Amino acid sequence: MKNIESISVNPQLPLATRLKNVKAYGAPVLDVELLMNTNENPYQLPEKVIKDMLIELSSSLADMNRYPDRLQLELRDELANYVNQVTDNSITSNEVWAANGSNEILNQILVAFFDPGAKALGFVPSYSMHKILSEQNGYQFLEIPRNSDFSIDILNALEVIESENPRIIFITSPNNPTGNVMTLSDLDKILNVANDSVVIFDEAYGEFSREPSAVKLIGKYSNLFVTRTMSKAFAFAGARVGYAIAQPESLAALGLVRLPYHLSTQTQILAKVALRNYKLLQSQVQQIINDREFMQKELTELGLVSLASDANFFLLGRFKSKEKVFDALVKASILVRDVGIPEFLRVTVPSSEQTHLFVSRLETLLDNREIELV
Amino acid sequence: MKNIESISVNPQLPLATRLKNVKAYGAPVLDVELLMNTNENPYQLPEKVIKDMLIELSSSLADMNRYPDRLQLELRDELANYVNQVTDNSITSNEVWAANGSNEILNQILVAFFDPGAKALGFVPSYSMHKILSEQNGYQFLEIPRNSDFSIDILNALEVIESENPRIIFITSPNNPTGNVMTLSDLDKILNVANDSVVIFDEAYGEFSREPSAVKLIGKYSNLFVTRTMSKAFAFAGARVGYAIAQPESLAALGLVRLPYHLSTQTQILAKVALRNYKLLQSQVQQIINDREFMQKELTELGLVSLASDANFFLLGRFKSKEKVFDALVKASILVRDVGIPEFLRVTVPSSEQTHLFVSRLETLLDNREIELV
Repeated sequence: MKNIESISVNPQLPLATRLKNVKAYGAPVLDVELLMNTNENPYQLPEKVIKDMLIELSSSLADMNRYPDRLQLELRDELANYVNQVTDNSITSNEVWAANGSNEILNQILVAFFDPGAKALGFVPSYSMHKILSEQNGYQFLEIPRNSDFSIDILNALEVIESENPRIIFITSPNNPTGNVMTLSDLDKILNVANDSVVIFDEAYGEFSREPSAVKLIGKYSNLFVTRTMSKAFAFAGARVGYAIAQPESLAALGLVRLPYHLSTQTQILAKVALRNYKLLQSQVQQIINDREFMQKELTELGLVSLASDANFFLLGRFKSKEKVFDALVKASILVRDVGIPEFLRVTVPSSEQTHLFVSRLETLLDNREIELV
Repeated sequence: MKNIESISVNPQLPLATRLKNVKAYGAPVLDVELLMNTNENPYQLPEKVIKDMLIELSSSLADMNRYPDRLQLELRDELANYVNQVTDNSITSNEVWAANGSNEILNQILVAFFDPGAKALGFVPSYSMHKILSEQNGYQFLEIPRNSDFSIDILNALEVIESENPRIIFITSPNNPTGNVMTLSDLDKILNVANDSVVIFDEAYGEFSREPSAVKLIGKYSNLFVTRTMSKAFAFAGARVGYAIAQPESLAALGLVRLPYHLSTQTQILAKVALRNYKLLQSQVQQIINDREFMQKELTELGLVSLASDANFFLLGRFKSKEKVFDALVKASILVRDVGIPEFLRVTVPSSEQTHLFVSRLETLLDNREIELV
């Protein structure tokens, strides 16, 4: 069957000029044994949580004829409670706002603060949707290259922000795909000069990080939006729940541009149950961190380079040809991600069992010279 | 508790200029007995359908750690099958595409075809989100007023389309809030001249109408997008499922701008089960039509004017002060919608039982002169 992503748009239609050479964004989908390409959590939902969800749904599905609570009041209570538990803050439900994945949150922010000519700024390489969504919304996207170790040159960043005056600044921490973090002290320096910008601090992988959450800065800066997701640490990618934490008078801007009833009844219910069970759902976060450390140690012993990471993935190299390695891994039923960084591929931490499979298959490929290092 | 819709945006933030005087869109939410303000289906989901949904979810929730099928392949199969059953067409899954409510579909179309300076055109009064979403996306929105009976002056429409060359044309049929339809022969005339436009034919209330669906025209016109929803006839507003029917090479434009993984696993599952049970779920569509006819007959006998409708709502008047009538109805625990049309209010058909309550309470208010007619 053909799919919409591989069909070309009829040239007789008035497609937006900025989309003429755009391809649909999306990771390659292949049927392999080791899915290590989209930073999913490898563990299924526990039986106990599924049971709670079914109970909650069984008493709520009858009312599906009614629109959902468009203010997500109960969900925002649960989110605030969760955030306070894990970040040691004391936000209220007026300081949190949810949508269908953090992509929808990012998009709401971009729409709310756009005027023709506005610029958005990112530190690359980073999450590729920042650029795609910015350009889709009419922003000029400025890319500041990271240092060779993928850290950010703060002094240079401050200069660029002052000279370019971007409407939006994206910072991802832990950064996808490089795994490194920005300290809150560096973020504070940026917020200190970025008075005319909205700063999006993307903490999609925050639960895997040792760095404290930037939530503690929202009281100080009205232009700070911390974005987070339930996709990763909650093992909840299929449910599509992302959220923003900011001051109420800042989140109010998203209320002006959200689609009416954007978050379904079933999504609100499932998210509430997951949040109430967050300790159980996140019991594997430490396991994933341990497994990442195990993999990185083993792979280093095999002569590979793996970059320090505070997330559930890391960059692995240095390969003579990342394209050939990607293909060799697919043949070994392993799917990783080519994120466009020379000599490196991004590897998601799989289940504990699969970490051993990954290391041993890689060793075999190295022994057979199907993988060649720089 | 304060809610995001009633909080003003911090004036220090760089809010988009076009949003400076915008208020959050949304119907008033009040706790009343007769909810007749958002054109919801008054009937809860049948037990049988809820049971099917719970069974399907119980075997799928475990995999929530994985992203959803971003191509919605099974859902699109079910949607195509349903559309073919009820509209007597033979579309394939490549000709249908789903999102979180038809609002998200409309937004995807607007984003995909926008260039600075583009105009969108609507025949007013109509669904207010057409204008809101168009302006949010940077379009200039042109309003062609409907005739006094809310029909469209086709010759005038053709002239305006040729002179203004709008990028997008919205036509709603049955039209919300007026209830009347556009014939396919009139639509054909418009499509015949609107070669440079994308025509959105919004059939949100299509299942209640006697007019055949415009789906039969998609083979002839690549620039026609028929949009539909599961919110109304399926009694499924809480689930947020809308869809577009168009040629595959036209839908491909939406694939370029959809958020990655915009439609959650749970939404896809619930929608598939609902579609498989469409006969059962829509068994009350005819009842709602009968109830509308009953109400209109009774209300006419009371001296009111109710406009002919092909939907699950109708315009009711002519009131000396629609604002006073709105308030009097709220006091009688009835919530209807003020859609900005002088002398009229929009009334959603409630449950059969409630139709009698509505008529009798209105009669009392008339007797007490709390409602005065023109």
